[in-house]
Amino acid sequence: MPHRRADDSDAGTIKGPLGIIAGGGPLPCVLADAAASRGLELHIVGIRGEAREEIERFPHTWMKWGEVGKLFSALDNKGCRDLVIIGGVTRPDLANVKFDLGAIRNLPFLVSLGMGGGDDHVLSSIVRFLESKGYRVHGAGDVAPELLAGQGRLGDRAPSADDKADIAMGFKVVGALGRLDVGQAAVVVKGHVLAVEAAEGTDAMLARCAELRSSGRTRRHARAGVLVKAPKPGQEERVDLPTIGPETVRKAAAAGLAGIAVAAGQVLMAERAATIEAANQNGLFLVGESVASLDST
Amino acid sequence: MPHRRADDSDAGTIKGPLGIIAGGGPLPCVLADAAASRGLELHIVGIRGEAREEIERFPHTWMKWGEVGKLFSALDNKGCRDLVIIGGVTRPDLANVKFDLGAIRNLPFLVSLGMGGGDDHVLSSIVRFLESKGYRVHGAGDVAPELLAGQGRLGDRAPSADDKADIAMGFKVVGALGRLDVGQAAVVVKGHVLAVEAAEGTDAMLARCAELRSSGRTRRHARAGVLVKAPKPGQEERVDLPTIGPETVRKAAAAGLAGIAVAAGQVLMAERAATIEAANQNGLFLVGESVASLDST
Repeated sequence: MPHRRADDSDAGTIKGPLGIIAGGGPLPCVLADAAASRGLELHIVGIRGEAREEIERFPHTWMKWGEVGKLFSALDNKGCRDLVIIGGVTRPDLANVKFDLGAIRNLPFLVSLGMGGGDDHVLSSIVRFLESKGYRVHGAGDVAPELLAGQGRLGDRAPSADDKADIAMGFKVVGALGRLDVGQAAVVVKGHVLAVEAAEGTDAMLARCAELRSSGRTRRHARAGVLVKAPKPGQEERVDLPTIGPETVRKAAAAGLAGIAVAAGQVLMAERAATIEAANQNGLFLVGESVASLDST
Repeated sequence: MPHRRADDSDAGTIKGPLGIIAGGGPLPCVLADAAASRGLELHIVGIRGEAREEIERFPHTWMKWGEVGKLFSALDNKGCRDLVIIGGVTRPDLANVKFDLGAIRNLPFLVSLGMGGGDDHVLSSIVRFLESKGYRVHGAGDVAPELLAGQGRLGDRAPSADDKADIAMGFKVVGALGRLDVGQAAVVVKGHVLAVEAAEGTDAMLARCAELRSSGRTRRHARAGVLVKAPKPGQEERVDLPTIGPETVRKAAAAGLAGIAVAAGQVLMAERAATIEAANQNGLFLVGESVASLDST
C-alpha cells in the first residue's frame, strides 16, 4: 500500500467544502474548528453511536453503520470531494448492521473487508474504496499540521539518560512490530519491555502496566519508563495516525511512567494545550522524536 | 550470551546427585520423577513461597530468597555439582529480602541483577554466577527430553489452512520480538495479531484475548486463531524455556482459539498427557513446529 507521510501537506489542493467522516472522541470537532479557522467550508458526516453530539455545532449529517448510500448522498449534496476520516470507531458487528441500497451496490467491497488482515488492511481498503469513487482522502495533519505532535521537548520536563535508553528501545519494539501490522505502542521501563500493544488499545495496555507495577511482578521504581507511540511503517497515515491526549498522559502517570515519546509529525495530539498541561502537572516528560532517528532503528 | 539448545543433551555427563532449584508449579516434581526414573540421585532446594510442598516427596531443603549461603551449603553437603533450575518465580521485592552471609559475600553479583535489562539478562546472569562457583547448569530437557513438546501433531486435531497461516504469522511476531528480549508468545486470529505477551505472562494475555473477543472489539469467529509460543532467539534455554500445560489449553479454549503451536523441542510440556487430553477435550489442535521452519522466518 502507498506510504503517505502526513507532512506531504496538500491542504492547498482542497478546493470545495471538506467532508469530515467522524468517529468518536474529540478529534472530529478539533479538526473541524481548525479547518473552519482556515476558512474552509465543511460538512461532517457523523457515525451514530461513535461520533459525539458536539458535531452538531457544524453542518452535519448522521449516518448509521451500513448506510453507505446515505454517506455518498450527504457528501455529494454538499459538493464534498475532499475527505478526512477521523475519530475512533469500534468494529461494528456486521450481523446487526442494516445495509442500505448504497451498501448493497458495494457488497463486493464490504465482503472484502471481512476477509481478515490487520486493522491497516481494513483502513487502507476503505481509503482505496473512497478513492475509486472519485473522492480525495486527506490526513488530518494535511489540513491542520498543528494537530500533529512536533519535534523535541513538548512540555516542561526533559527525559533523563535512562529515559532516553528506554525511548530508543521502545521505538525498536514498535518498529519491529509495525512491520508485521501490529500495534503502535509499547512500554519500556529501565530496559525491560513491560507491555506491547496489539488489539487492546493504548489505554488498556497502560492499565495493565499500572496493575503489573502495583502487584510487584516487575521491579518497582519511583516514576520510571516510557510510553512510545509511532505509526507502523507503511501505515495508512491519512486515516489511522496514532493519537495521544490528556487521558493518555494521565494513564501513563497512573502506570508510574516517567514520560511519553512519540514520532514527531506522525502522531495526532489534537488537544495540544491540554495534553502538555497534563504532562506538566503530572511531572511527565513529553517528547517528539524525529523521523530520521526512527528510520535508523 | 551463549545460546544453548535444549537438544544438546548432556544428561549423560551428570555424575553425582542432581540438584534441583525449585520454583512454583508442578514442573520441579515432574522433573524429579523423571530424573529418579533414570536412576539419578537428586536433592531439591525449594524456594519458600514459590515451590509447592509436594517437593517434600523427595530429599529436599527449603531456602528463602536471599539465603544464598544456605543454597550453597545444601548443594555442597549433598555433593550436587549438576543443577537444574525449574519452576516459575515471582520477582522478589529486594527491599524485604533478608540476605544471609553467603548472599552478602556475593553482593556485587546481586547488585548487578538489579541493574535492569530484560528477564533473560537476569536469568543468564544467575546461570553465569552459578557456573563461576563451579556448578554445571543443565536444562530440564537435557535431563528428561520427554518433558519437551515434540514435533508435529500432538493431539487429535490438525490445524486448517487458515490456522497454518495464523501459526506462521505468530512465529514471525514472536521471532521479531524475541530478538529484543520481549515475550515468548502471541495470539493471531485470522491474520490479525490480537495480543502480544511482554511482562504480563501467557495466562494474562489469554484472559485479555477472551475479553477482547467477547466484547466484540475484534471480529468474532467460531473458534479461530492460535496461541504461538517459542523461546526468544539466544534465550538462556537452560533456565527459561517457555512452558505450556493443561491450564494453558483451557485458557486458550476460553479465548475462542482453534489451537496452540509451539517450537518443537524448545517448549516445556511437562504434564504431557494432561495437556494433550485438555486439547482433545476442548477441540483444540496442539502442534510442535520444527526449528528449521522457525529459522526461516
